[in-house]
Amino acid sequence: MRNVYVLSADMTKFGKSPLSARELALEASKKAILEAGISPSDIQAAFVANAFSIAEKQGHLGPILMSGLGVPDVPASTIESACASGASAIREAWINIGAGIYDCMLVVGVEKVSQLDTITATTYFSFGSDFVFEGACGASFPGLYGAIARSHMTKYGTTEEQLANVAVKNHENALSNPNAHLHKKITVDDVMKSPVVASPLKLFDACPFSDGAAAAVLCSEDFLRTKGRKFSEQVMIKGSGRAGGTGALFQREDLTSLNAAVLAGREAFKMAAVLQKDIDFAEVHDCFTVAELIAEEDLGFAARGEAAKLTEEGQTRIGGELPINPSGGLKAKGHPVGATGVGQVVEVYEQLHGKAAGRQVRDARIALTHNVGATGGSCGVHIFQLT
Amino acid sequence: MRNVYVLSADMTKFGKSPLSARELALEASKKAILEAGISPSDIQAAFVANAFSIAEKQGHLGPILMSGLGVPDVPASTIESACASGASAIREAWINIGAGIYDCMLVVGVEKVSQLDTITATTYFSFGSDFVFEGACGASFPGLYGAIARSHMTKYGTTEEQLANVAVKNHENALSNPNAHLHKKITVDDVMKSPVVASPLKLFDACPFSDGAAAAVLCSEDFLRTKGRKFSEQVMIKGSGRAGGTGALFQREDLTSLNAAVLAGREAFKMAAVLQKDIDFAEVHDCFTVAELIAEEDLGFAARGEAAKLTEEGQTRIGGELPINPSGGLKAKGHPVGATGVGQVVEVYEQLHGKAAGRQVRDARIALTHNVGATGGSCGVHIFQLT
Repeated sequence: MRNVYVLSADMTKFGKSPLSARELALEASKKAILEAGISPSDIQAAFVANAFSIAEKQGHLGPILMSGLGVPDVPASTIESACASGASAIREAWINIGAGIYDCMLVVGVEKVSQLDTITATTYFSFGSDFVFEGACGASFPGLYGAIARSHMTKYGTTEEQLANVAVKNHENALSNPNAHLHKKITVDDVMKSPVVASPLKLFDACPFSDGAAAAVLCSEDFLRTKGRKFSEQVMIKGSGRAGGTGALFQREDLTSLNAAVLAGREAFKMAAVLQKDIDFAEVHDCFTVAELIAEEDLGFAARGEAAKLTEEGQTRIGGELPINPSGGLKAKGHPVGATGVGQVVEVYEQLHGKAAGRQVRDARIALTHNVGATGGSCGVHIFQLT
Repeated sequence: MRNVYVLSADMTKFGKSPLSARELALEASKKAILEAGISPSDIQAAFVANAFSIAEKQGHLGPILMSGLGVPDVPASTIESACASGASAIREAWINIGAGIYDCMLVVGVEKVSQLDTITATTYFSFGSDFVFEGACGASFPGLYGAIARSHMTKYGTTEEQLANVAVKNHENALSNPNAHLHKKITVDDVMKSPVVASPLKLFDACPFSDGAAAAVLCSEDFLRTKGRKFSEQVMIKGSGRAGGTGALFQREDLTSLNAAVLAGREAFKMAAVLQKDIDFAEVHDCFTVAELIAEEDLGFAARGEAAKLTEEGQTRIGGELPINPSGGLKAKGHPVGATGVGQVVEVYEQLHGKAAGRQVRDARIALTHNVGATGGSCGVHIFQLT
């Protein structure tokens, strides 16, 4: 495997948008191509991360996107792993370039969930877990994470206030992110008083349904050389991990950890040859507040049951020992399903290049992304380092 | 890139099925694993080729399938390129194994289009082309291929009877394929008298909507060695090509060729270092009769406008100079969208191992598969050789 670099990454604003998935994908792609200083004709292949474009009656997004960019010959497939589609697409592009198949690829994550004329976004979300054994039995997606949260509280004594801390921090971070869906400072009290969605989870424990797209240009060393780019101060993919977990929760013995994340994290850390203490910040999959705590424990940033304390002590704030979700995370930056994992890479790109303005993590050189599909049926973890 | 082998491939019967996509995928996977003589725990990662499982309210098929196989930790993403999803998934598995990421992968293609309680299968098909500029304007999928057929007839003088010849041959081939959807001998007259679907295409010019699944186990040389398997008489992937084309037909200057197929074919032939005359048989994407003729011309098996004569002269029959679609093709074997490209590999596996019984192509050692997404927005071509 050859070294693979993130030459650029950019995104649309996340939030409710009047644009369609094809338009959002095109906007993010054009921004990333512009940021990379390349032309669409430099792109040799693409992956589109998307879960629900069928709701707009459009599958096969790749050719639509590449036609829009003026390079219809370029092959482009869609990759879907529910909410982890973005990480899956980044990983496959990393493998394609690493293997020497291509030197320059575009990865675009996109989702359009608002203003659908068919069914509600929350119904679509339930299609990511096991519909036969969960959705069809009435277990909504927040309901499944409610069970996970309740398990964590029962086993480790985690409190609702501790979950609320995560939301408060991530909303605070998103205030400095112009592309974030939610720009709203909240307090623990706000979270506690928000309507219960699936006990113990309340409205402010949950990420919003967002529209949006994010894109990244990945390339080889040969491509950098051909384009006369420097090898230093580039964002390199140092480690990639990917694993699966049971589709349904009833198949698990323990709900307080996502095994897919444990395995994917282990693979990524081993490959990158770095330790948890080497990570300067992480973007993790906080679809619900409890998911951020579990992510920290699954990735080895905190001992089991100890993650809530990290947040309480301010260690996971920007400026803390290990900033988690400086972008605002899914919780406040937003969660356009297929775009989320690629959006995490946008944050890494901006942070490692010192372009994160008010939410900049000082001297960040090594960062991690953690992207979960549904309730942990899939997980992709990547570690990036500034060369 | 390391050498990659098709250790096994098997499928469900194609046709109307009472089973769901998850059940069909599991059946095909278990058959392929059994045929490979391995255990599910030997599988390190999987790709699922699928386009429309959302119609059953189930996305994220990978974890569902791997949980069903008893190996939920194994990562499994869905890959979608409309009707070319299967070839895309085969290609990505080839790259993963070739790059040394995994030694053994499962590729499963699956589709369930009958008995959907939402919309009709033909509506789903229209989601593979450009819905905004085609489907929403009333251009059905057969309508688009009708335009392609009309162009070919106008430019080259191809006749409706010549198109019918393709259907007659493929129905004949399918009679010897126990897994084929249609077991019905037909005549040119039957085709000519069948109801017009989208002039000049009639019902018997079109493939059926099928449910079904197909699976293949791909592996590295290291895997063969570890399992004590011989290196000779194995099906090796010698070439892989993949390209895109415009999403909509109005963006093309010429409708008589699919540029994606031309480019993908060129890439695969170059990589395999073989010539058209070296191919012993080909499975090509005959979603409509005209598509088989165009495939032969795009792949260089016939000069432009000359493919119809090959069929007329019997050259593309089993026993002819270049048998095309000995399985019966999409036309008669059936077309369960995501399963089709993987199903082509099942035919290659059976033929190269001499297991094709009544439809066996004598002394077949080199075979080609050609899998098209929608009206040519995507195409994947693979060349296989018995070692």
